[in-house]
Amino acid sequence: MIRFDSDYLEGAHPAVLSRLVETNQAQTPGYGEDPFCREAADRIRAWCQAPRAAVHFLVGGTQANRTVIASVLRPHQGVVAADSGHIAVHETGAIENAGHKVLTVPGAEGKVTAQAVEALCAAHFADASFEHTVQPGMVYISNPTEIGTVYTQDELAALYAVCQKRGLPLYIDGARLGCALVSAECDYTIARMAELCDVFTIGGTKLGALFGEAIVITAQALQKDFRYFIKQNGGMLAKGRLLGLQFLALTENDLYLEIARCEVALAMELKAGLTQKGWGFLVDSPTNQQFPILPDTVLTELRQDFGFSTWQAMGGGMTAVRFCTSWATTREDIQTLLRSIPQA
Amino acid sequence: MIRFDSDYLEGAHPAVLSRLVETNQAQTPGYGEDPFCREAADRIRAWCQAPRAAVHFLVGGTQANRTVIASVLRPHQGVVAADSGHIAVHETGAIENAGHKVLTVPGAEGKVTAQAVEALCAAHFADASFEHTVQPGMVYISNPTEIGTVYTQDELAALYAVCQKRGLPLYIDGARLGCALVSAECDYTIARMAELCDVFTIGGTKLGALFGEAIVITAQALQKDFRYFIKQNGGMLAKGRLLGLQFLALTENDLYLEIARCEVALAMELKAGLTQKGWGFLVDSPTNQQFPILPDTVLTELRQDFGFSTWQAMGGGMTAVRFCTSWATTREDIQTLLRSIPQA
Amino acid sequence: MIRFDSDYLEGAHPAVLSRLVETNQAQTPGYGEDPFCREAADRIRAWCQAPRAAVHFLVGGTQANRTVIASVLRPHQGVVAADSGHIAVHETGAIENAGHKVLTVPGAEGKVTAQAVEALCAAHFADASFEHTVQPGMVYISNPTEIGTVYTQDELAALYAVCQKRGLPLYIDGARLGCALVSAECDYTIARMAELCDVFTIGGTKLGALFGEAIVITAQALQKDFRYFIKQNGGMLAKGRLLGLQFLALTENDLYLEIARCEVALAMELKAGLTQKGWGFLVDSPTNQQFPILPDTVLTELRQDFGFSTWQAMGGGMTAVRFCTSWATTREDIQTLLRSIPQA
Amino acid sequence: MIRFDSDYLEGAHPAVLSRLVETNQAQTPGYGEDPFCREAADRIRAWCQAPRAAVHFLVGGTQANRTVIASVLRPHQGVVAADSGHIAVHETGAIENAGHKVLTVPGAEGKVTAQAVEALCAAHFADASFEHTVQPGMVYISNPTEIGTVYTQDELAALYAVCQKRGLPLYIDGARLGCALVSAECDYTIARMAELCDVFTIGGTKLGALFGEAIVITAQALQKDFRYFIKQNGGMLAKGRLLGLQFLALTENDLYLEIARCEVALAMELKAGLTQKGWGFLVDSPTNQQFPILPDTVLTELRQDFGFSTWQAMGGGMTAVRFCTSWATTREDIQTLLRSIPQA
Repeated sequence: MIRFDSDYLEGAHPAVLSRLVETNQAQTPGYGEDPFCREAADRIRAWCQAPRAAVHFLVGGTQANRTVIASVLRPHQGVVAADSGHIAVHETGAIENAGHKVLTVPGAEGKVTAQAVEALCAAHFADASFEHTVQPGMVYISNPTEIGTVYTQDELAALYAVCQKRGLPLYIDGARLGCALVSAECDYTIARMAELCDVFTIGGTKLGALFGEAIVITAQALQKDFRYFIKQNGGMLAKGRLLGLQFLALTENDLYLEIARCEVALAMELKAGLTQKGWGFLVDSPTNQQFPILPDTVLTELRQDFGFSTWQAMGGGMTAVRFCTSWATTREDIQTLLRSIPQA
Repeated sequence: MIRFDSDYLEGAHPAVLSRLVETNQAQTPGYGEDPFCREAADRIRAWCQAPRAAVHFLVGGTQANRTVIASVLRPHQGVVAADSGHIAVHETGAIENAGHKVLTVPGAEGKVTAQAVEALCAAHFADASFEHTVQPGMVYISNPTEIGTVYTQDELAALYAVCQKRGLPLYIDGARLGCALVSAECDYTIARMAELCDVFTIGGTKLGALFGEAIVITAQALQKDFRYFIKQNGGMLAKGRLLGLQFLALTENDLYLEIARCEVALAMELKAGLTQKGWGFLVDSPTNQQFPILPDTVLTELRQDFGFSTWQAMGGGMTAVRFCTSWATTREDIQTLLRSIPQA
Repeated sequence: MIRFDSDYLEGAHPAVLSRLVETNQAQTPGYGEDPFCREAADRIRAWCQAPRAAVHFLVGGTQANRTVIASVLRPHQGVVAADSGHIAVHETGAIENAGHKVLTVPGAEGKVTAQAVEALCAAHFADASFEHTVQPGMVYISNPTEIGTVYTQDELAALYAVCQKRGLPLYIDGARLGCALVSAECDYTIARMAELCDVFTIGGTKLGALFGEAIVITAQALQKDFRYFIKQNGGMLAKGRLLGLQFLALTENDLYLEIARCEVALAMELKAGLTQKGWGFLVDSPTNQQFPILPDTVLTELRQDFGFSTWQAMGGGMTAVRFCTSWATTREDIQTLLRSIPQA
Repeated sequence: MIRFDSDYLEGAHPAVLSRLVETNQAQTPGYGEDPFCREAADRIRAWCQAPRAAVHFLVGGTQANRTVIASVLRPHQGVVAADSGHIAVHETGAIENAGHKVLTVPGAEGKVTAQAVEALCAAHFADASFEHTVQPGMVYISNPTEIGTVYTQDELAALYAVCQKRGLPLYIDGARLGCALVSAECDYTIARMAELCDVFTIGGTKLGALFGEAIVITAQALQKDFRYFIKQNGGMLAKGRLLGLQFLALTENDLYLEIARCEVALAMELKAGLTQKGWGFLVDSPTNQQFPILPDTVLTELRQDFGFSTWQAMGGGMTAVRFCTSWATTREDIQTLLRSIPQA
């Protein structure tokens, strides 16, 4: 059985793991106030060319989203997201549990557009009874999106311009950020992206870490008291250095992007192979998630030897499924998979 | 510098770490639905002689407390705790953030007594305007407590009897449970303790794991839908197997209790040494946290070579401090420390 | 200026007001524990043929919705509503503020259908990762709906059958319940409706009271501790008798339905008049809210002498607007309005 | 039976009620956007000499407290209050339900002292692990307090100085504010008090209104978006003019203070009478709540003809009880009561 269900099915990249092993006996203060976390934060600030950014490390993505959003919004405000946004559909209402409505707009291939945000704000404030509805308070996007698409620089710049005009902090969930940055669609660096938003995450879990998301808060106004929020939301890891150590490993020798390049390259190989066989896709994804549309008969066969996620019934006996590559995926895995899928 | 500030300053016990290394390449489903978690849960059920218990694994203690309490209480209910209880004083209002008042009662050496709970309930329901006050909805205790004391079987049985009479689920926070179980004060097994409460945790972080708390829900009525709560509270680890693997290691060959025995034995050595030197203690703790009362002049000296926590000013130039032992503490560490502390 | 903006622009029906005046000097216990509230609750139980129902009185509708929903749901659950439902769009996120997602389904002329609820539940529980999404926990409908339509008995029965199959309490927001009950569409009594749901409100504010919503909880399982929720949500009126007194007046001599009949009859007169003039409607409403589609040029004129709400731009220079009748509306008001609107 | 249980046992002062009757047929916009509310707000601004204050009207006190506090605090902050503060003990955890811990300090005859707030803040920020505890975010006091005592100008000024130094908005719950202002202890006007805090309420319910609390927000920074909070917390009254109308009546011809003077004068008569008979008091209250300590045998007799609240068992067969005067209390009521109480 080779599993492509998701990108968190194995442990950590060996370089990450060995860092944990080497430092195992060292004593450090807890709760993220250790030298490893400090150094990793410095590295990230340097990488993002954001010397005044606050950098924090959390264990998981839902935790990061919930904590960031709870720290930004006032109670009467909601967070704008695509209808396919992770916070809108796959976090068991964590945002609502923190008291906030997720104000969804129709996604354009999973992306929130500048126009959609402007329209939402215009409608809200034009309404004579606006106090009876939730006020848009910030914007959440994922890059890459939940269906693997990547924002272009123009899209980000337009979106951020609307956000600034409307006074809405822009938050980018980068659970798979590396895959966006190395994708063919991406025409910007992380430093440029850091200028086009107020806070973003650099996801480690899906790019070689055992776990860990770095939160980078570039907007000074959003930095205050953030550690209280981490603790209150249950995200302050006692042995916090585990997070710093992993991000130290990931930011060394370009490892984070190198892992991303491998993931994306193998995904492109899969995409090319399937295209060649005549199969279509739910969406044209340039990252490590691919959503081919295959006959149910083929899928039944495939399930005996491969793991993957069912995404969406397409009618006519066809289903869109998801294959993910991870740091541990090999070219051989992809070739084996391709050999098992017939021509269209 | 030798640090005794807390019991989470090093990485993991080697047996735990090697388990993570060995399995690093294996593919498993995410979110705790892997064979390692399943097997670890089975082991814990067997150990606790609670075959019908639900067992879940979370990363941290505040997360576990918040998640358990949120899953048990209705909105108009509060959780009863000692005024020194972790949820009352050291979780940045995580329980209140989840909507619930912490109803504190005066701790008896950090313990909640049956009498205190009964008195609180009697007062609440005797009040003609009880609907204007928060209803007691469950009881939270820590074992050992935040100051190292351990409940006796009689104390637990009396407390649980009141809880059952009053319809209040009893939750035991076992962040350092191993240390309670192996202490000289403890006259029960974990299986017996499991009969005397409705839900409890077995803390791994402070007993040899990188991180991880096992939640054991013995009360059937509290088991429903618990995984939703884990996700909503940001505690569902993508590579959930990391938790299962660590608890597999800890439950093998009695490792968990063996680590606890080492921690407690060294703490007893410290206690004996300090007593012999004529120093007193804030509380008579039979576990791995010791709270000697020392002159500030001595402490200033000590701080140059040792880490420890300041606990409470005692007046007269004396301060109660906390020394913790961990899985990594050695007899040599204790002896070095003792040599650096003068006679009283 | 004659205002038809809404049905809460005047004070109370004289019979209601005089009751308040007559009893003004009487002393009673506070917080709804007075004889007037008790008697009003008895009257409502008798009217609904629900002798075991719990009846409470709150000041306002959003307060009632928030309080009922907070008392029913567990934190991981959401409330199903039409996308046009009041709780979904016009309560400033009060439900989310209480921690719950509003799970919207497309409304069928503002109504939630049995099919939509079944489809939502089926999709939720069929999803392998259902714990990552909000669990449907109850269903909210308005009767009449926000656009004036009324559920038929068959619709209610089908919906309630799905709710019972899926274990979802059904809550009917009856802010304008009287208007539904007296409408031509309605083929059931309040007693029959009470059998087809678990909790509902009888709205007083829009039917002759100064303020006040009666909450009728027929399901025994939902009755426990409800008064705590009223207090916690800020809805326990000190001089609670004001609510009881008004509902006493409304339930005397069929006054509540009599007011509803007047409101609806005048709305039907308006509807007939507009239809006769050749104008169409956004929806075919049998109750006291009418949504004609009129040219913007006509509306500009009308605004000089009449108040009404702008509802929805229809394109082509046409706009749907809302006219409401209230207990104080007169036939003369309607005729004056009709005279001011030209033929289509 | 003459009831002194509380000050909300009757309807409204005739001048208030007649205002409602006179305007009953008038049409006005809803939700507090009517001319009556606007004029009443202007009156209050003038009275308080706070021309830039925002004034809002809510139905009840718990609602007002919850709404104000929710609008001021960020999630990691708590509100400081006396341990006897209404929000700490008598609002069913409404503040916790809104996500915030009530940080109690020991009351000095029910009052929060400047020293207590400074000590709390100093302790919080001195703690190395302050991010693990709730941050003080605002201060709540009641004036008069729950036990009838009144802040002096010096006390208020000292407290507000600490609040400003520590960046904590000061909120005064004036549920019975009139009684404080007219009491012998009071050495300031409402205008002066308005300078010594950031937001306060003027309670109508206990001083002649059917219901209603005016919220006066003097601090510009706390005014933004407040109406959203009113709606979200279920406090936006549809027929909002009812609140404006009552406050118009109360602010005319000094009626509010006149009612307060009557209440307090009769309470002083009761106090003098009881003192003369040799009875003592729980606290020396200069306002409309009196807490004499009487023998249980006497109380049993009294209960046959009079209503009052049991406050606190004092031991030795004695109990402190509460007698309240209201706008409707007469001198004859007081004399009748006094005649029924024997000499000590």
